[in-house]
Amino acid sequence: MLKFNEQKQIESVNGALALRNQINELIDGICKEGYKNICWLGIGGTYASCLQAEVHMKEKSELSFFVENAAEYLTTGNKKVGEGTIVIISSVTGTTSEIVDGVKKAQKSGARVIGFIDVATAELAKLVDYVITYPANEQLKFYMVADRFMYNAGEFPEYEDLYKELDQYLATALVEVEKEADAFGEEFANRHKDDKIHYFVGAGNQYGATYSYAMCYWEEQHWIRTKSIHSAEFFHGTLEVIDKDTPVTVFIGEDSQRSLSERVANFLPRICGKYNIIDTKKFELKGISPEYRGYISHLVMHAVTQRIDAHMEKVNCHPMEIRRYYRRLDY
Amino acid sequence: MLKFNEQKQIESVNGALALRNQINELIDGICKEGYKNICWLGIGGTYASCLQAEVHMKEKSELSFFVENAAEYLTTGNKKVGEGTIVIISSVTGTTSEIVDGVKKAQKSGARVIGFIDVATAELAKLVDYVITYPANEQLKFYMVADRFMYNAGEFPEYEDLYKELDQYLATALVEVEKEADAFGEEFANRHKDDKIHYFVGAGNQYGATYSYAMCYWEEQHWIRTKSIHSAEFFHGTLEVIDKDTPVTVFIGEDSQRSLSERVANFLPRICGKYNIIDTKKFELKGISPEYRGYISHLVMHAVTQRIDAHMEKVNCHPMEIRRYYRRLDY
Repeated sequence: MLKFNEQKQIESVNGALALRNQINELIDGICKEGYKNICWLGIGGTYASCLQAEVHMKEKSELSFFVENAAEYLTTGNKKVGEGTIVIISSVTGTTSEIVDGVKKAQKSGARVIGFIDVATAELAKLVDYVITYPANEQLKFYMVADRFMYNAGEFPEYEDLYKELDQYLATALVEVEKEADAFGEEFANRHKDDKIHYFVGAGNQYGATYSYAMCYWEEQHWIRTKSIHSAEFFHGTLEVIDKDTPVTVFIGEDSQRSLSERVANFLPRICGKYNIIDTKKFELKGISPEYRGYISHLVMHAVTQRIDAHMEKVNCHPMEIRRYYRRLDY
Repeated sequence: MLKFNEQKQIESVNGALALRNQINELIDGICKEGYKNICWLGIGGTYASCLQAEVHMKEKSELSFFVENAAEYLTTGNKKVGEGTIVIISSVTGTTSEIVDGVKKAQKSGARVIGFIDVATAELAKLVDYVITYPANEQLKFYMVADRFMYNAGEFPEYEDLYKELDQYLATALVEVEKEADAFGEEFANRHKDDKIHYFVGAGNQYGATYSYAMCYWEEQHWIRTKSIHSAEFFHGTLEVIDKDTPVTVFIGEDSQRSLSERVANFLPRICGKYNIIDTKKFELKGISPEYRGYISHLVMHAVTQRIDAHMEKVNCHPMEIRRYYRRLDY
């Protein structure tokens, strides 16, 4: 299999899950001290991960939490951010200017910042109030934080049970998804490599997945045009430009908004001959209880899209690491 | 001028502004009684208007307010909505199912609902706790509510001064924008009528404007493909698919996020030969003080896009009232 190192991927996920002691010590301390609210701060791909954490918490939590786009925070501000605010960020390089400046602004207003920084030596790693350095697995890191906050508030009684399963089964379940999805990924890449535009539709934690997959992968890394649209919003305009030859892919997960995407999936065959449905429900996810599958639907989808990417890169002869403009021009 | 009735438009805006006594009586009563939080509930175009009210309030307010997409609320729910919540909705027909069901659900949880319903006889008009019936001008209605809440909280000291200007000058200023923008609108429509895809970029209250203009007008009513993207997010992926022949339009307003869109406008000429900048700053807006122009930037932009629409409809021989699927198929 292309770009696939089973052992390395299992270790990557298990290593991320092993951050939980460190995360819990931190969050438990914050909860003991008291805090006012939780701000998920991101931009681009990390903004999408924030949206996923938000919809996950919204389903269960009465805590005060919200998502803030770093660039909007720097200009419009957000009066909710201040003394008692816990800001959570994630950064691979630690150099994204909007995030660095956003962290400084939040701290100046009295907030404390938890930073997941992949590179321990980054300036940002020194800047944040609490740093956890470990590569990749951003979504898992965010969910571990969200779940601990909710657990401490008595809103997540399944916490121990869930993480016992994830610790034991998640990493293997995800590589099994990749193996199972590989042939589909290859076929998908071949079928869609020349798309003039591709629509990605999703809801719940799959909305962030469609947003970042469309923008951060197809646009940024494959240079293929896309539009991502929330499954509910699809019916309020976008549907009108879909016809038999329009490529559309619906990401269906297993969280509370599953029905919104099923509605799109049920509708599409009537008007479109080039649609794909990727439903996380089709994957076994050995060891994961039915009631927890929704919590990891976005990770399952990511495992599927990784297979598309591996093949798309090859069939399009377009290395994913090259950029036309991003970090190559000053703007 | 095509589809332009100056007197009717002036009366429409002034009639909306005249709702202010009714709105204030309502909001003042709610503030006196006390409330917990404010929920802007929408879907599709009304969701975009909610986003505009949110960014407007975010700049100034420490009140507890948030936007909720009606379909997401119906599935995921939102624990913040309950006793003491004031939900605000707007509906032209009063029959959008997500809104009708969302209102019922919010009320069941203890929230009270303010409904701006264009049609007084709609079921929804009877369902909501407080109804105000008047056609069109949704954004203005929302801002009047937001501003009164903020004024009552001591966060909007310019309230009286602002509305004195709006009452006197807004309606005329907007029709003057239409007249000034008409030639541009015609030229724009001719230049972009055959676009395979068109990118709309904006920030602040222009983000909601790009979102709804792209989706509810070009996709739904002109059947032209679009992608709307926030000016800040543009630099985190979408920029890579822009080349010399890609049609891109930047909506620049005059609120707190103006600089985010100026950044896009400054960058585009280096990589793109088919961009448009629509900057509200270019319009006189007679009688409106500089410090208030940002509050109405989205209304100014709407006046401009109305001119594009009038001409696009004509040059594309595509009546804006026809739909392929929306409310024509069951789904």
